[in-house]
Amino acid sequence: MSISQINGQRLLDNLHALGQIGALPSGGVNRLALSDADRAGRDWTLARMRELGMRVAVDAIGNIVGTYPGTEDLPPVMMGSHIDTVRTGGLYDGNYGVLAGLEVIDTLREAGIQTQRPLAVAVFTNEEGARFQPDMMGSLVYVGGLPLPEALTTSDADGVSVQTELQRIGYQGTATVGEPMVDSYVELHIEQGPVLEQLGLQIGVVEGVQGISWTEFTVEGQSNHAGTTPMALRHDAALVAAQVTVFVRELSQRLGGRQLATVGALRLSPNLVNVIAQQAVFTVDLRNTDSGALAQAESDLHAYAQQAAQAEGVRITHRSLARFEPVAFDPLVVNLVEQQTQALGASYQRMPSGAGHDAQMLARVCPSAMIFVPSVGGLSHNVREHTEPADLQRGAQLLLQVVLALANRPY
Amino acid sequence: MSISQINGQRLLDNLHALGQIGALPSGGVNRLALSDADRAGRDWTLARMRELGMRVAVDAIGNIVGTYPGTEDLPPVMMGSHIDTVRTGGLYDGNYGVLAGLEVIDTLREAGIQTQRPLAVAVFTNEEGARFQPDMMGSLVYVGGLPLPEALTTSDADGVSVQTELQRIGYQGTATVGEPMVDSYVELHIEQGPVLEQLGLQIGVVEGVQGISWTEFTVEGQSNHAGTTPMALRHDAALVAAQVTVFVRELSQRLGGRQLATVGALRLSPNLVNVIAQQAVFTVDLRNTDSGALAQAESDLHAYAQQAAQAEGVRITHRSLARFEPVAFDPLVVNLVEQQTQALGASYQRMPSGAGHDAQMLARVCPSAMIFVPSVGGLSHNVREHTEPADLQRGAQLLLQVVLALANRPY
Repeated sequence: MSISQINGQRLLDNLHALGQIGALPSGGVNRLALSDADRAGRDWTLARMRELGMRVAVDAIGNIVGTYPGTEDLPPVMMGSHIDTVRTGGLYDGNYGVLAGLEVIDTLREAGIQTQRPLAVAVFTNEEGARFQPDMMGSLVYVGGLPLPEALTTSDADGVSVQTELQRIGYQGTATVGEPMVDSYVELHIEQGPVLEQLGLQIGVVEGVQGISWTEFTVEGQSNHAGTTPMALRHDAALVAAQVTVFVRELSQRLGGRQLATVGALRLSPNLVNVIAQQAVFTVDLRNTDSGALAQAESDLHAYAQQAAQAEGVRITHRSLARFEPVAFDPLVVNLVEQQTQALGASYQRMPSGAGHDAQMLARVCPSAMIFVPSVGGLSHNVREHTEPADLQRGAQLLLQVVLALANRPY
Repeated sequence: MSISQINGQRLLDNLHALGQIGALPSGGVNRLALSDADRAGRDWTLARMRELGMRVAVDAIGNIVGTYPGTEDLPPVMMGSHIDTVRTGGLYDGNYGVLAGLEVIDTLREAGIQTQRPLAVAVFTNEEGARFQPDMMGSLVYVGGLPLPEALTTSDADGVSVQTELQRIGYQGTATVGEPMVDSYVELHIEQGPVLEQLGLQIGVVEGVQGISWTEFTVEGQSNHAGTTPMALRHDAALVAAQVTVFVRELSQRLGGRQLATVGALRLSPNLVNVIAQQAVFTVDLRNTDSGALAQAESDLHAYAQQAAQAEGVRITHRSLARFEPVAFDPLVVNLVEQQTQALGASYQRMPSGAGHDAQMLARVCPSAMIFVPSVGGLSHNVREHTEPADLQRGAQLLLQVVLALANRPY
């Protein structure tokens, strides 16, 4: 039996059609979660699911699941991702996983193929977390990791709640959260990093998601005149923030391997050329695929921060902004992805995901894995986000082959 | 002949009266240059000059000079300072020098004393530079260091020019800039630093002003996802800014002595927890009493900045925001201040000024010096700026004695 081939042009057309909704003049997309643009994007996606003959359910947190029946009444093999974006997002982050899933369904429908297990395509609410925190909210609620009432009462910066916005846009559904039970989950996504492009590879076989630890530090020093305060009498908040910033780079080098460490945000106060900083607030983003190594990095960071603060005579406090343990995807599904990548003749490597994805939530309740395709320049969360059409099409074809293998596998 | 004594209570009352104009709820003063509050402060000060029978002239950059006649028609001995403040200023920075000058005039007037040389009290425009750069603008124009048209066309952050604001508040006068020619200049000022307080001294005999070098650096790196960009592929603008910040502290320690080095302002872009900084803009404030050492510090700083940028693969550029060579005050006037301090029985030390002052501009055209009184906690540019009443009164009495000696000295 020949292998069905996805319709590459249809996939691209659909990506561009959805990308028109919330399109920015600069070429990207702004479809913040639960905005009017998100509603329009949901309407478009839901209509496409119905066109494909899928049964559509919307749950109380607004997750949309379209199901395409199998020959047997079993838990479905689920594909999916999200269609919300950051304020200056691209066409592919999230959308690609959803629309490639629908392209898989369309391809099978056209070919008259019905798999043993049903297939589902999920659109999870508020993956980006750009408007409501935490990110990956819909999938986290779906797997029982965040109580529904807590998610619904979360408010954005203007004090508007998830519940209010879900009702306003008509996407607080009646389906039971967490249903259907899922057989397995495969998420296709752009890499959002430079690794595949740098290595000249076509596919990333994603073995897991690295652990994330976000910490905000606040340094309280003493504001004084930069021209009249002897160096020995200073309590300079900016200096300690800078020392920690330099330290985290050294820490990542010392721990090596897959330890990432970034100070991306820093605010000084009063932030004047001739005034010693009274306060510095900055963030440290630590990531590691290894749970123990991540904890070690955190511990070393806190020890250094305290030591630097003490040496300068300033006070340093910290709070955790986010923390996720590393997630290892199911080896059987990962191996299956690798086999199908080989069958496709695509070049690839096994790799972790640097960013968080809905798949890491689904991994709590079912065997899961992810497929990456290259991001040009490694850019994402950026209107210049781009993946070459051939890469987008190859990824969707691989997704098709993986879900066919999963959906038709023996018990 | 007994020495006249200033009226200490009147001095304090006047300081508090002027401090009511532009008063902040928190206790300090906001009287930004050429604002409505500055106008009101000028009106108050000018009225007080007229009360004292002084001849008042306002020049084209808004400097106010009140002159009290001497027995001979000679260039005046000038006192003075400024009455503009930073946004969160105190009651004494600048205002003290002006009001102590007027207190000297009032004391002599009440005692019926006329000096041989006239006495003048100057209020220089925009000393702080908090709204219009450069700082010390009025005195710099007065001594011919900045062309008047250039000063007048300087705009604030909202694009409003000095000329527009001078006209709006009615303080673009007709007096010739730079007149009267000045015999000598003595500026009384709070220390704005912790040295006198730390040493338990009452008076600082100021020998000069340290040199100042302000540089703004712009680092252009590459914005990328903090979770997906391997450490080795990063071009992190924040890291280089932090490395330079740590370096300037080390530099000050290595050069030792009176080398001061401060990174007080730093802005990252996009300034997000999970995005590697594309841009960092930060300032370095270097000060030294020694011209050669200051130049060495600048040279070392630029060499390090280039080296750090190269190592991280980012571009770094810089521009000078301000640069003043160290100023040595006139030894004869400094010695006179020291003698009068001893005559007063006050404890003192000879010291440099850490901050810039109008006196350093006047020093270009006439023998000049400064007198410092202690700042509690070394605080200035701060609503908690404070000097004890006894210190304020002692300083004004010393000013009286110094200008009497200057104004009556033999030819």
